[in-house]
Amino acid sequence: MSLEALKQTIAREIGTPALVVDLDVVERNIARLQAQCDAAGVKNRPHIKTHKSVRLARLQMAAGAAGITCQKLGEAEIMADAGIDDIFISYNLLGEEKIGRLGKLLQRVNVSVAADNPTVVEALSNAGWIAGRNLPVLVECDTGRKRAGVETPGEAIALARQIALTQGLSFAGLMFYAPENAVEATNRFHDEVKAALDAEGIRIKRVSTGGSPNLINLGRTPAATEHRSGTSIFNDRMQIAAGVARQEDCALTVYATVVSRAGAERGILDAGSKVFTSDTGWKLDGYGSILEHPEARVSQFAEEHGFLDLSRCNDRPKVGDIVRVIPNHVCVTVNVVGELVLVRAGAIDEVVKVEARGLVR
Amino acid sequence: MSLEALKQTIAREIGTPALVVDLDVVERNIARLQAQCDAAGVKNRPHIKTHKSVRLARLQMAAGAAGITCQKLGEAEIMADAGIDDIFISYNLLGEEKIGRLGKLLQRVNVSVAADNPTVVEALSNAGWIAGRNLPVLVECDTGRKRAGVETPGEAIALARQIALTQGLSFAGLMFYAPENAVEATNRFHDEVKAALDAEGIRIKRVSTGGSPNLINLGRTPAATEHRSGTSIFNDRMQIAAGVARQEDCALTVYATVVSRAGAERGILDAGSKVFTSDTGWKLDGYGSILEHPEARVSQFAEEHGFLDLSRCNDRPKVGDIVRVIPNHVCVTVNVVGELVLVRAGAIDEVVKVEARGLVR
Repeated sequence: MSLEALKQTIAREIGTPALVVDLDVVERNIARLQAQCDAAGVKNRPHIKTHKSVRLARLQMAAGAAGITCQKLGEAEIMADAGIDDIFISYNLLGEEKIGRLGKLLQRVNVSVAADNPTVVEALSNAGWIAGRNLPVLVECDTGRKRAGVETPGEAIALARQIALTQGLSFAGLMFYAPENAVEATNRFHDEVKAALDAEGIRIKRVSTGGSPNLINLGRTPAATEHRSGTSIFNDRMQIAAGVARQEDCALTVYATVVSRAGAERGILDAGSKVFTSDTGWKLDGYGSILEHPEARVSQFAEEHGFLDLSRCNDRPKVGDIVRVIPNHVCVTVNVVGELVLVRAGAIDEVVKVEARGLVR
Repeated sequence: MSLEALKQTIAREIGTPALVVDLDVVERNIARLQAQCDAAGVKNRPHIKTHKSVRLARLQMAAGAAGITCQKLGEAEIMADAGIDDIFISYNLLGEEKIGRLGKLLQRVNVSVAADNPTVVEALSNAGWIAGRNLPVLVECDTGRKRAGVETPGEAIALARQIALTQGLSFAGLMFYAPENAVEATNRFHDEVKAALDAEGIRIKRVSTGGSPNLINLGRTPAATEHRSGTSIFNDRMQIAAGVARQEDCALTVYATVVSRAGAERGILDAGSKVFTSDTGWKLDGYGSILEHPEARVSQFAEEHGFLDLSRCNDRPKVGDIVRVIPNHVCVTVNVVGELVLVRAGAIDEVVKVEARGLVR
């Protein structure tokens, strides 16, 4: 089917804005990530926070993923319901309600978690008690991002000891989410922790690295056993800016309609911050790239309006035109919209709900 | 119940992050808006894009609202299902799928729409044909925001004529969403259009003004017949910055848990851009105000991490603390999370789904 015919089908049967996913590109991206991990000798543990979709997680598992990564307990529960049995929640879980759910999840699937402080470790203990078996815990280590993660090998060693000694828990290893320029710092951090833990007979079974931009560093951390990449399944403007994807690797575009052209140099799309969110990063100019009008600038969002600056465009869209927009950050777009139109060879294959969309807990 | 007891109930029964809405403040905000509209002699047509909740829309109607405003057809359908019969969709609707739905909606409730260009007007005609009765259309006029809306009275007059002549449509009036400093421009725009249309016997029945920051201008547009205010039901940091709300008028706070304190001067909340989105505006500093730690700065978001800069805090939160955060922009937060914990006098009244959350079409 031609692109124009697909646009008309979407306008007639689905409406805009619509998140349209090219399955051929998705499958190519999944295969590429798997091949990259295979070549580096690490397990592929894709982060499903990007797509939050059972169908896409199953595609990743079928392509060779050893398990998946989730950021929220609610995501993990959905994926466990779908039959995925090896789930890493790369997050500090805390609070009575969550620990109860975590315990129940551990009863039925192999779930592991991260922790970066003693309070969380202490709380996690109860999940193992509820499940009747040990919960594997990785110590989250920070080598420069200044997000979560202990800052020093000494803290990591102390936390590993605490985990090893805590009823209901087993120490599983180290988790890193390093900045792209911190490979050496990560390796030094790991080696120092390992030397100390080896001496105490505490074994590091897993060393988990993460990030799609960090795919450029795959294979440079000899101790790594697995990698967590989320965004690479779809890619977006930020991944292009990070140098890890090209435009043709972007599997998801937002189909939006030009609904207003009140001025000669400007227009309005029927998609704003309630579709794209306002995320920006990597010094991106504007909020999206329009494939049909590369000189157009998505200059601003209202909640349901995407402002187009057309001053640099020779060929300008008219009211009623449907255009395809690559978002700045695809993960948040998928999360807010919650529905994906899967297409193959230009025809609609299936419209799927994003089962774990908006699950904040 | 004490605040601390409420926090513990939420941690035990619901978990964080949670969007907690104080019903007493909501009812005060609803009553204040109604009183402001009454005093100005205009109908109150609250914009439900902020809460997207049937229960809250019914509270607004019960307090005296003449009808509601929606930005999306999907929102209007949900509200029609809930029995609300006077719905204005303040948006250019376009595309075969939408026009079909609009026609069906017009069959069962009193719905009106906005339009700012001939292509949309032509498309809308079919909705009236489907419904078997005329669709009232307001011409959207721009007096400085440069979003949607015709830029000149001449264009508004031409569009009003087109609507009046189009089968299936009736011309209903003018819609403005003016910048806060454009009262005079709005009045001049209206008067010029009215003079021309009067001469042709085309009657302006409705003049709709909008915006919560524009509540300061209520009563200053003599021709106005109704006002659309959305955010004032909850308020947020942007409304405070705009000078139309105080902190105690903020009905919604995000309860979030401090899950990491990896450095002395920093911490991490379990809520990031997938709860708050990255919206900012009115030159706000950071991404939220923490009621318990006003000196703390919500400096950055990852998808599920809220970065806290605690360098200016004397009293710093510890891991496990639950804090209340006023978001920058409450509308997008409600839309992405989709669940509200309604409380009264510190006790949970009801947990409600945001029925129209994420409805992008």
